[in-house]
Amino acid sequence: MTLFDRVREIALVSSTGHILSWDQETYLPSGSADYRSAQLSYLAAHAHKLATSEDFLKALEADEEADDGSDPVRTANLREIRRESDRSVKIPTDLVARESTAQSAGHHAWIAARKASDFSIFAPHLETLVGFALEKANLWGFAGEPYDALLEGFERGTSTAAIAQLFDALRKDLAPLSSQAVAKSPPSELPPGPYPVATQQSFNAIVAAEIGFDFETGRIDTTAHPFCTTLGPRDVRLTTRYMESDFTSSLFGVMHEAGHGMYEQGLPAADFGLPSGSAVSLGIHESQSRLWENQVGRSPEFWEKFYPMAQGHFPQLKGFPLEKFLRHIQRAEFSPIRVEADEATYDLHIVLRFRIERMLLNREISVAQVPATWNDLFRESFGFAPEDDAHGCLQDIHWSMGGIGYFPTYTLGNINAAQLFKAATAIPEIGAATAKADYAPLLTWLRENIHRHGGTLDPTALMEQATGRPPATDDYLQHLKSRYLRSS
Amino acid sequence: MTLFDRVREIALVSSTGHILSWDQETYLPSGSADYRSAQLSYLAAHAHKLATSEDFLKALEADEEADDGSDPVRTANLREIRRESDRSVKIPTDLVARESTAQSAGHHAWIAARKASDFSIFAPHLETLVGFALEKANLWGFAGEPYDALLEGFERGTSTAAIAQLFDALRKDLAPLSSQAVAKSPPSELPPGPYPVATQQSFNAIVAAEIGFDFETGRIDTTAHPFCTTLGPRDVRLTTRYMESDFTSSLFGVMHEAGHGMYEQGLPAADFGLPSGSAVSLGIHESQSRLWENQVGRSPEFWEKFYPMAQGHFPQLKGFPLEKFLRHIQRAEFSPIRVEADEATYDLHIVLRFRIERMLLNREISVAQVPATWNDLFRESFGFAPEDDAHGCLQDIHWSMGGIGYFPTYTLGNINAAQLFKAATAIPEIGAATAKADYAPLLTWLRENIHRHGGTLDPTALMEQATGRPPATDDYLQHLKSRYLRSS
Repeated sequence: MTLFDRVREIALVSSTGHILSWDQETYLPSGSADYRSAQLSYLAAHAHKLATSEDFLKALEADEEADDGSDPVRTANLREIRRESDRSVKIPTDLVARESTAQSAGHHAWIAARKASDFSIFAPHLETLVGFALEKANLWGFAGEPYDALLEGFERGTSTAAIAQLFDALRKDLAPLSSQAVAKSPPSELPPGPYPVATQQSFNAIVAAEIGFDFETGRIDTTAHPFCTTLGPRDVRLTTRYMESDFTSSLFGVMHEAGHGMYEQGLPAADFGLPSGSAVSLGIHESQSRLWENQVGRSPEFWEKFYPMAQGHFPQLKGFPLEKFLRHIQRAEFSPIRVEADEATYDLHIVLRFRIERMLLNREISVAQVPATWNDLFRESFGFAPEDDAHGCLQDIHWSMGGIGYFPTYTLGNINAAQLFKAATAIPEIGAATAKADYAPLLTWLRENIHRHGGTLDPTALMEQATGRPPATDDYLQHLKSRYLRSS
Repeated sequence: MTLFDRVREIALVSSTGHILSWDQETYLPSGSADYRSAQLSYLAAHAHKLATSEDFLKALEADEEADDGSDPVRTANLREIRRESDRSVKIPTDLVARESTAQSAGHHAWIAARKASDFSIFAPHLETLVGFALEKANLWGFAGEPYDALLEGFERGTSTAAIAQLFDALRKDLAPLSSQAVAKSPPSELPPGPYPVATQQSFNAIVAAEIGFDFETGRIDTTAHPFCTTLGPRDVRLTTRYMESDFTSSLFGVMHEAGHGMYEQGLPAADFGLPSGSAVSLGIHESQSRLWENQVGRSPEFWEKFYPMAQGHFPQLKGFPLEKFLRHIQRAEFSPIRVEADEATYDLHIVLRFRIERMLLNREISVAQVPATWNDLFRESFGFAPEDDAHGCLQDIHWSMGGIGYFPTYTLGNINAAQLFKAATAIPEIGAATAKADYAPLLTWLRENIHRHGGTLDPTALMEQATGRPPATDDYLQHLKSRYLRSS
């Protein structure tokens, strides 16, 4: 069995786990959770065992020695397999299984805690999960602080210090920008619902297909929290949720997840499981979702074309002018909930989470101090405290799944999205097509410049190659200003 | 790791495969089939590898030696694990993987062949699958003929000769019985549809819950062919399909599959994967589905209670008398399609398939002769030939999945169902409750006499213990006569 076949075997096992997780979130009966958690834990441990076997490591060494550099994709694959392997071998398999079980338990406890808005239900689980995070960080090792080691798993090649510097700078610009945006945001109104779920589903499917999501190799289901997951090289599942009072909630959910999905569908399917067939990082992944949700989905150009179609689906929109509709989807307000936040305030939520995670990992605060710290930092940025922990530190799923270090990639995604969109639309044909809501040329550019490279380049190098310069906040801030601070 | 832990590990891997198969039939995007087949084949091979490992076999031997017979369930488990193991070790793992892949390919070819009603599309795959069946039969060994070895995998303790004898006798009784039933079947009519799918779904869910299916640990989805599958000790999935012209089609599908599902839900969950926590045989499994579908679901007593509820759901039934409705669901006719066949003619379909499978395995006919043989035998029993192969030898999924030897268990199920129902309702309290469509006592009796025993007794012994005598056709024939030949 060749090294690459072994890597593919691990991907097969991992993708099998994704099928189980997808089912767990979509269709699993309420009383069936325990055994599913055992099945997931088994698969995680099995994949880890394969990735850290003697045979695997020997095959990797042999291939590295034999590599003459004549095939740059192969060389990149070996480099990334080595990077991943060096991390994997430091983690014992039983830790993987124990962490998987703790994540399942943490996830269930978090659901109960959020429902009751009672942090004490979740606190012991968060303690355990922070313990696992620190244990892994210490096993992996780090140059600066434990958070570095976690971040590396989501966004390779960056550091806590670099993120902190970026976020500090961004916060200086965003604080006044968001306040002004909220202050000048005109009142928004949408004709009252119900916007029937079945009609939302048809409209969403039309939009998703129109921007390029392939339903031959993908589908959309309903979950409490929207997500995108890949169950095989040609099997991408999106989910969304529905509010009968506002059809744009599920729609932007779908456009966001379809952005992730189109990235996955644009990866080289023949290389599924190899680094060259895998997404490079979460910051790049999120750039794809945010680009389609925000740069495209909240633009006037998009709605010039799709608003009449929306009016055809939802009779209450007839007679409601496009201009007022745009005001609705471009409104800015200080909301306690991240997933409901607009672009002008979104990153303030991320910066807050990053600061708390970092303090937790550095043991500057205890788990018990999380709610109070959250509320203090929230007040500092938003001017008020959330009404309860359900609307505060219990709102997000990530920590309950052990995803500490994940949040910063959302803001990286926003920054990358703006820079990619600007670079692409600066090309005259793409700019002209996008202005007419014809998105095929834009998708082709993303396929060519981002998707097809998989994980062969580091995120920064990939951005530089695609846009001519390393990621920077300029385009993003300019985008926010022109959308939220324009005179109206 | 104890032997029983090893058996549980194999069950975990196999049940993971069931999740993948369930998704394949319910939600898999049309373009995603190939990789799913690879995932399934991997899991099948992995489970087989575990079941035939040195460590497993040593653990089994050690436990057998140590067993003092003081715990009869443990002894039964060891006996059945040994029986299964002796079969498994005879099959090389690569054959398992190759057969799994051939089954996936065969399944896809069968779908295409049936759609085009073109047997030639499926023929080479059937040839391959018959080849696998023979190869396995020869590896397993058999006393009489290759079919014995296959049958043993579905219904332990029986033989081809015994089935042939049973079926010959049954056919003698059924030939006149079915002809008379069809001849005296009054014309059936149902008020025209549409019976909306969503309304059918609500009604079906009410009925399924009412007879005892637990939705906390189960659910119902939609597929081309109804089935029931178990994804974990507390996770049972049913499926059905919908005709807008006749709501009883999906309803009887649900009652049938719920019968399977309640059996699975009644097995000792703590023993999941062990023989004592597993269904004993397909003939017993099918007895549960047929009992709820036919003995219960097509009875006047059931509809005394549920017809008013059906009328509430489907306005077109208002004013349509119960008596005419009963005539509709108790009609008898010679139909080319097994899954649409009524009780009076169903087993003729099974006998036909058994005869063809046996001839194929004994190489008395070639694969190419299947369509003509089918049509000849069909004409012999039904008096006409099916209009094409889609309505003939291509109608069933089983062969395409390698399920040769499976069909006879349907008729065993019918026989067992009648015998169990009669024995249970002969108990005054159960009889009285069932007459009022209160099915809790009947389910309790089945839980007690069938479900809780899992696979600790052979099917025949289980039937004998539950009903006081070994399975025989008397009760079944009596049931058919009283339902289909009563003067009306």
